Amino acid sequence: MNTQRLQKILARLEEQNLTQMIICDPMAINYLTGRMIDPGERLYALYINVSGGHRIFINNLFTVPEDLGVEKVRFFDTDDYLGLLSDCLVSGQAVGVDKNFPARFLLPVMERSGAGPFTVSSICVDEVRACKDEEERAIMRTASQINDQAMARFRQLIRPGVSELEVASQMLDIYRELGADGCSFSPLVAFGPNAAKGHHLPDNTVLKEGDCVLFDVGCEYKGYCSDMTRTFFYKTAPSEKHRQVYELVKQAGDAAKAMLKPGVPLCQVDAAARSVIEAAGYGPNFTHRLGHFIGQEVHEYGDVSSANQNVTQVGNVFSIEPGIYLDDEMGVRIEDLVLITEDGCEILNSYSRELAVVE
Amino acid sequence: MNTQRLQKILARLEEQNLTQMIICDPMAINYLTGRMIDPGERLYALYINVSGGHRIFINNLFTVPEDLGVEKVRFFDTDDYLGLLSDCLVSGQAVGVDKNFPARFLLPVMERSGAGPFTVSSICVDEVRACKDEEERAIMRTASQINDQAMARFRQLIRPGVSELEVASQMLDIYRELGADGCSFSPLVAFGPNAAKGHHLPDNTVLKEGDCVLFDVGCEYKGYCSDMTRTFFYKTAPSEKHRQVYELVKQAGDAAKAMLKPGVPLCQVDAAARSVIEAAGYGPNFTHRLGHFIGQEVHEYGDVSSANQNVTQVGNVFSIEPGIYLDDEMGVRIEDLVLITEDGCEILNSYSRELAVVE
Repeated sequence: MNTQRLQKILARLEEQNLTQMIICDPMAINYLTGRMIDPGERLYALYINVSGGHRIFINNLFTVPEDLGVEKVRFFDTDDYLGLLSDCLVSGQAVGVDKNFPARFLLPVMERSGAGPFTVSSICVDEVRACKDEEERAIMRTASQINDQAMARFRQLIRPGVSELEVASQMLDIYRELGADGCSFSPLVAFGPNAAKGHHLPDNTVLKEGDCVLFDVGCEYKGYCSDMTRTFFYKTAPSEKHRQVYELVKQAGDAAKAMLKPGVPLCQVDAAARSVIEAAGYGPNFTHRLGHFIGQEVHEYGDVSSANQNVTQVGNVFSIEPGIYLDDEMGVRIEDLVLITEDGCEILNSYSRELAVVE
Repeated sequence: MNTQRLQKILARLEEQNLTQMIICDPMAINYLTGRMIDPGERLYALYINVSGGHRIFINNLFTVPEDLGVEKVRFFDTDDYLGLLSDCLVSGQAVGVDKNFPARFLLPVMERSGAGPFTVSSICVDEVRACKDEEERAIMRTASQINDQAMARFRQLIRPGVSELEVASQMLDIYRELGADGCSFSPLVAFGPNAAKGHHLPDNTVLKEGDCVLFDVGCEYKGYCSDMTRTFFYKTAPSEKHRQVYELVKQAGDAAKAMLKPGVPLCQVDAAARSVIEAAGYGPNFTHRLGHFIGQEVHEYGDVSSANQNVTQVGNVFSIEPGIYLDDEMGVRIEDLVLITEDGCEILNSYSRELAVVE
């Protein structure tokens, strides 16, 4: 177990008047143990207690190193593993549980253990994870550098008669050639009106002259994610309206980045970008929050939205991704990752944000 | 909404003395609405009630057809969507919830709504899904036929000096060439001693003469999964011991299949295969259940294990996958999908199960 990270989490638990917690997010367990397991539908849980006696519950199906640094409770599918977990909780004391702990484990454990009340305490883990340490920052810089290089290659895939799926299907290989371990999410490729659809998946739509071309892509590198969006125009320069839309989106991102430093409420960051777009009358066309935190996962705890009054902290890494979507017409989104530093911010992506018409 | 499927589910709810349920499994919602959404961390839930008034909660980020056949509750990230969901529950009445409903939604809804107690009622959905209708059976037959064809191609990837990762990375393209939509899970490729490790992921291990070669692979086709395992030997015929291990695994599978028809307890199916392996002294080396149900997902509700006393029903599709694992040495697993029919079973895979040495 990474003692430093564990101690930070236990301290947060105590601040919340909790003594014990069940962590089940494989990424959070990996963050502490350095061991990644995808348990599928099976129970995989790390029990931690401010007085010690931490235990990890792992199905015998999964091989783990001997020296995991925490007592292991191994079990077979046919064992009463929820009984084992219930028994390990300290009776009469509140229990923090992972935000993702599923009802099929949670409800039986609530009924069978003498502990409680149960409360979601993922924040104790997530707030620690949200402040990347030096090792994590270095990895995330590289992940975004690879993404920059990949975007240059992806741009070259914009060719006459190509379909969204054809473009998307080549991206994984390019990432691997550039040294990434894989995609951090299924690449989004959208041509023309498809770029206006919220979560459009690449389909057989064929590229047409005058289309906008939206790439929302990221790679995984040493267990950490990158994530960037660029929007190009194909063959024809955009209409005056679409050019204005593009510039507004770019300015909105610039406005948000300009105010980044430790201690800034995240809702104000969202507002800075949103007000640029609203002032031009496109407010209703910016249909999502400005950004999300990112690290081991593409979407981690924390976001840049009007509802989030938490303030930025050194080590936070999140996306700034304003967009304007014109239904049945086109959409523009420009996204970079930023890292909050002692005196400002570092933009992890360097790929050009200037309007570009691809021949 | 698929009324026939919905009515079956509501009937099961009433059998469980439940009037209302929150379904959140995207696959289960897809099963009813024909619409697949991957909500990521966002709330996506279908509320159903035996008296009607069904409602689906969908974030505005996701586009859905107008004619979903159920009242939509749309919301933004910044809205109080857990309040909307809590308000929709009928007070004073028990609530069935999805087995996967996460603590971050479940605990607040339990606290805020006047309804309860809360109980996992996924079985009402899952038992209906476990009996595939004719349309589903036809799709699953094709998915497994593609998997058979793919296995023949995968076998050709067994070449001197190749690594597990190199083999695995070519599988997706082969599936697509054969008409599949993708992999149903990340392909497992294991050489030699790696085949003895429970959930070994393909790595840079290079193929050596005398290695066993285990492929556990499946494709997705029209929203349904295939899943098959074959174990080959590379260059050298296996030792007498390893040949015996292979034949035992094959016989274990045969023994299980021979007894398949409606009404057979699944634990007895597991026992039939396990006893063959145990009788030869390899019981401790068969470390997992005999099989799992499969359909829209690779692992669905239902398994073939010593703990499952439920009986087979017409339309059930599950895997029969005995294995023997010799630590630090080798492993053999042979897996087919089977469909329970009125008078027996249909084996969905036809790829040879005979011991094969690949040159």
